[in-house]
Amino acid sequence: MEPRPAASGPCPGDSRAAEAAAAASLLNPGRAPSVAAVLPAGGSGERMGVPTPKQFCPVLERPLISYTLQALERVFWIEDIVVAVTGENMEAMKGIIQKYKHQRISLVEAGVTRHRSIFNGLRALAEDQPNSKLSKPEVVIIHDAVRPFVEEDVLLKVVTAAKEHGAAGAVRPLVSTVISPSADGRLDHSLERARHRASEMPQAFLFDVIYEAYQQCSDYDLEFGTECLQLALKYGHVNARLVEGSPDLWKVTYKRDLYAAESIIKERISQHICIIMDTKEDETHVGHHLEEILKNELNHVEVTSGALCPAGRDLKQIILEQCYNYVCVNVMSSDFEETQRLLNMLEESDLSILYPVVVISVYFLDYKSVPFDQKVENLMQIREYAKEVRKRNILLCGLLIYYPQDEQKLQASLREGATIITTLIKERNSGLVGQLLIA
Amino acid sequence: MEPRPAASGPCPGDSRAAEAAAAASLLNPGRAPSVAAVLPAGGSGERMGVPTPKQFCPVLERPLISYTLQALERVFWIEDIVVAVTGENMEAMKGIIQKYKHQRISLVEAGVTRHRSIFNGLRALAEDQPNSKLSKPEVVIIHDAVRPFVEEDVLLKVVTAAKEHGAAGAVRPLVSTVISPSADGRLDHSLERARHRASEMPQAFLFDVIYEAYQQCSDYDLEFGTECLQLALKYGHVNARLVEGSPDLWKVTYKRDLYAAESIIKERISQHICIIMDTKEDETHVGHHLEEILKNELNHVEVTSGALCPAGRDLKQIILEQCYNYVCVNVMSSDFEETQRLLNMLEESDLSILYPVVVISVYFLDYKSVPFDQKVENLMQIREYAKEVRKRNILLCGLLIYYPQDEQKLQASLREGATIITTLIKERNSGLVGQLLIA
Repeated sequence: MEPRPAASGPCPGDSRAAEAAAAASLLNPGRAPSVAAVLPAGGSGERMGVPTPKQFCPVLERPLISYTLQALERVFWIEDIVVAVTGENMEAMKGIIQKYKHQRISLVEAGVTRHRSIFNGLRALAEDQPNSKLSKPEVVIIHDAVRPFVEEDVLLKVVTAAKEHGAAGAVRPLVSTVISPSADGRLDHSLERARHRASEMPQAFLFDVIYEAYQQCSDYDLEFGTECLQLALKYGHVNARLVEGSPDLWKVTYKRDLYAAESIIKERISQHICIIMDTKEDETHVGHHLEEILKNELNHVEVTSGALCPAGRDLKQIILEQCYNYVCVNVMSSDFEETQRLLNMLEESDLSILYPVVVISVYFLDYKSVPFDQKVENLMQIREYAKEVRKRNILLCGLLIYYPQDEQKLQASLREGATIITTLIKERNSGLVGQLLIA
Repeated sequence: MEPRPAASGPCPGDSRAAEAAAAASLLNPGRAPSVAAVLPAGGSGERMGVPTPKQFCPVLERPLISYTLQALERVFWIEDIVVAVTGENMEAMKGIIQKYKHQRISLVEAGVTRHRSIFNGLRALAEDQPNSKLSKPEVVIIHDAVRPFVEEDVLLKVVTAAKEHGAAGAVRPLVSTVISPSADGRLDHSLERARHRASEMPQAFLFDVIYEAYQQCSDYDLEFGTECLQLALKYGHVNARLVEGSPDLWKVTYKRDLYAAESIIKERISQHICIIMDTKEDETHVGHHLEEILKNELNHVEVTSGALCPAGRDLKQIILEQCYNYVCVNVMSSDFEETQRLLNMLEESDLSILYPVVVISVYFLDYKSVPFDQKVENLMQIREYAKEVRKRNILLCGLLIYYPQDEQKLQASLREGATIITTLIKERNSGLVGQLLIA
C-alpha cells in the first residue's frame, strides 16, 4: 500500500483531501490567502433533549466538538481556529484541548446568541484588538462545532470562492418541502423545492466583509438572525457564492444524529485491519488462511499484514498511517509475548488518544497437543492485560480458534473466527474487553 | 408492573398511545370517520448511495418498510393500508408481508413519481373502481414508507384535523436556514427561519378532497410536484391545518439515517429486561444481588423477575408484553434445563418474528465445588443451542460469573457481569452468539 501522510488521518475522504491539496497547490503561492476559522460553540442543545450541550456530548467517549476541531486542524492552511464557548464551559473546553492535543486553538467567550459568539471570534482576529496574539486573516471560515465531518475539499472551495466573490457558503438540496403557515396555523403556501436550498456550513468570507457587516448590523440581527450570508448581503452588498456540499455536512441536532455520528465514525475507523503474524516464512499456514478469509468477508476493508520482529519498522509505518484495528495471530506460541510487544508499541504511539484501538489476540487450539481446558486456563490471563490497557483506550480481547485436521472444518472455524473479529472491530464496545471468545 | 395490551408493542410511546386511545374515545362513536392509509413506496433511494431502495434496506435484518407497516397496523382504527410498490419489488413486498405477518395491507402498482403512486393508491380505495375489495374511507392518511417512527397520537391529530378542515399535515421547525439561489449560483435572498416550516408526514385528507384534486391536477403536478397539501389547496381550495410533529417523524433519507434508525430501535427494545430465576425462595441469594445491580446500573430500564415453574404463567404474561431481553439465572444447577424451557416458550410465542430476542444464560463459578476448566467445558454446549435458536432470531449467550467468598469481590464480579449483560442487550449483535463470557 502507498504511504499516506500522517496528518490525513482516517477521517473523511483521504482521496478528496489529496485532490484538495492538489487544488491548493494550483493557487499561486504568493496569492494564497491567509485563513483562520471561527467556531461558535456556545449553544445549549435544547433540541437534543439532554442536559449536556450537544457539542460536548460524547461520541465513542470523546466530545463531539473534538472531532470538529480535528477535522479543521488537519487542514494545514488554516492558521488559527477561534472557538467561542460560554464561561461556564471554558474550563471543560481547555481540558478537551489538552487531553486530545488540539493545535492552533484560541478560546473566546461566547455571546448569548450565535451571531454574538461569531462576532466575538472575529474581534479576536481583528488587528484593532490590543494584546491579541492572533493576526488578521484575509479569509475567515465560519463553521459549526456540531458538524464534525467537514472535509478539506469543501473548505477549500468556500475559501477560494470567498476570496473571489467576498462570501461563500455550502448548501444542500432540501429534504422536505418548505411551507409558509398563516397566523392561524393553516397552510398559506408551499415553496417550490427545486428552487430553494438548505444553507449549511462551512461558510467563508473576506475578513473585512464579514467583520464590517457585524460592526454595522443591528441588535435585532444579532439577537434573532441566524444566517451570516444574509449579513454579508445586507451590509456588505455581497451575493455569496453557493457551493454544493456533501450530505456529511449535516448538523448534529437531535439525539438520533449523535447515534448516526457514532456509527459513521465507527465505520470509518474500521476500514483498515492490520494483522500481525508471529511467523513470516510459511505462506500456507493457518494465519494466512485467516487473513484470506478476512479479506474476502470484508472486501471493502484494507487488510495488511506483517511481522513485529526484527525491527518492527513495518508496523510503525502502519501505526503512523493510523490503523485502529490489530489482529495479533499467534500460530507458534500460546503466550502473550507478541501481543505484549504490540501493546507496548501502541502505547508508545499516541494512536489511542483520539479513537479506541481494538486489539484481538488470536490463538489456535489443536486438541492433540494441548487439551482445551489447559489452553483456556492459560489464556484467561488476558483479562489482566485487558484491564491494564483499557485505561489507555485500547480494547483487548482474546480469540481461540479450533484447529481441526479436517480442511473443511478448519475453514468453518476460521470463518467463525473472522465473524467474531469483524463484530469486535465494528462494535468497538468496551463492555467485552478481556473476554476470551471461541470460534 | 401494569399489564399492557399486546397490540401496543415496544415501539414508540406507549403512554402517548394511551392518550391517543383516550382521545379517540372522545370522538362520538357514530361520528368517528372511517380511515385508510396510503403509503407510496416506489422510490429508488438514489440519495442513499446504495443499490437497494431505502424502504427495503435492512434494519436489524428486517426491511425498513416493515417497521412503518407495524407502526400503522398497531393503530386499530386504520382499516386498510394501501402500499404502492413497483412491479419489480412486488414479489419482495409480498414476501415481507407474509414473513412479518402484516395485516390489512393491499398492494397496488407504483407510478413513476410519488404523486402517481399516491394517485394509484387512492384509486384502489375509490368506490368507482370495479372489482375493488376495499371500501372508500371518509379520511385517508398519506404517509411515507421511510418514516417508521410515526406514533398514534400524531396520526389521530391529523385525522381529526382533516375531518374538520379537509386536510392536515405534520410540520417541524426548520433545522437549516432556507435560501433562494440566483440562476448563476449566488445567494439571492434567505428566508426567515421562524416564518417557515418543514412539511413532514403523516398527512390526512377528506378522501373526496384529495381524490378530486388528483383527478383534476395537471401532468406537470404529477411529474414534478411533491406536496399533497399544495394539491388540496390548489384544486380543493382547502388550507390544510398544520400540526406540530415530533422529531421522530423524520424521513430516512441518507445512510446515516439508517444508522440512526437502527440505534433508536435497539434502544427501544432494550428498555425491559426480564430475569428468570431457577429458585424463588431465598431473597438474599446471588441472583437477586445481580438483579439489584442491573436495576441500579440501568435506572431507566424496567427490570422484572420471576420463575418459570410451576406453571410459567408470569413469564407468558411478560412475553405477551413484548419483552425482548431475558436473563436466565441458574443458581442451583449447571445444566441447560431452565434455559431450554425458556427457549421453548419463546419459540412457541411469535416474539422473535419482529425483533431479535436476546437470551443470556447465567451461571456461577464457586471454585471450591467445581473446578473452572470442568465448568467451562460443560457450558460450552451452549454453542450448539445457540446455533439452533439463531435460526429463529434468538441470540443466546452464556455468562459465567465468579462467585468468590469475599463480599466485595463478589460485588465486583456481579457488576462486571451486569456490564456484559448490558452490552449484549444493547448491541444485539448476532456475531457473538454461542459465546461463553466470563465475569
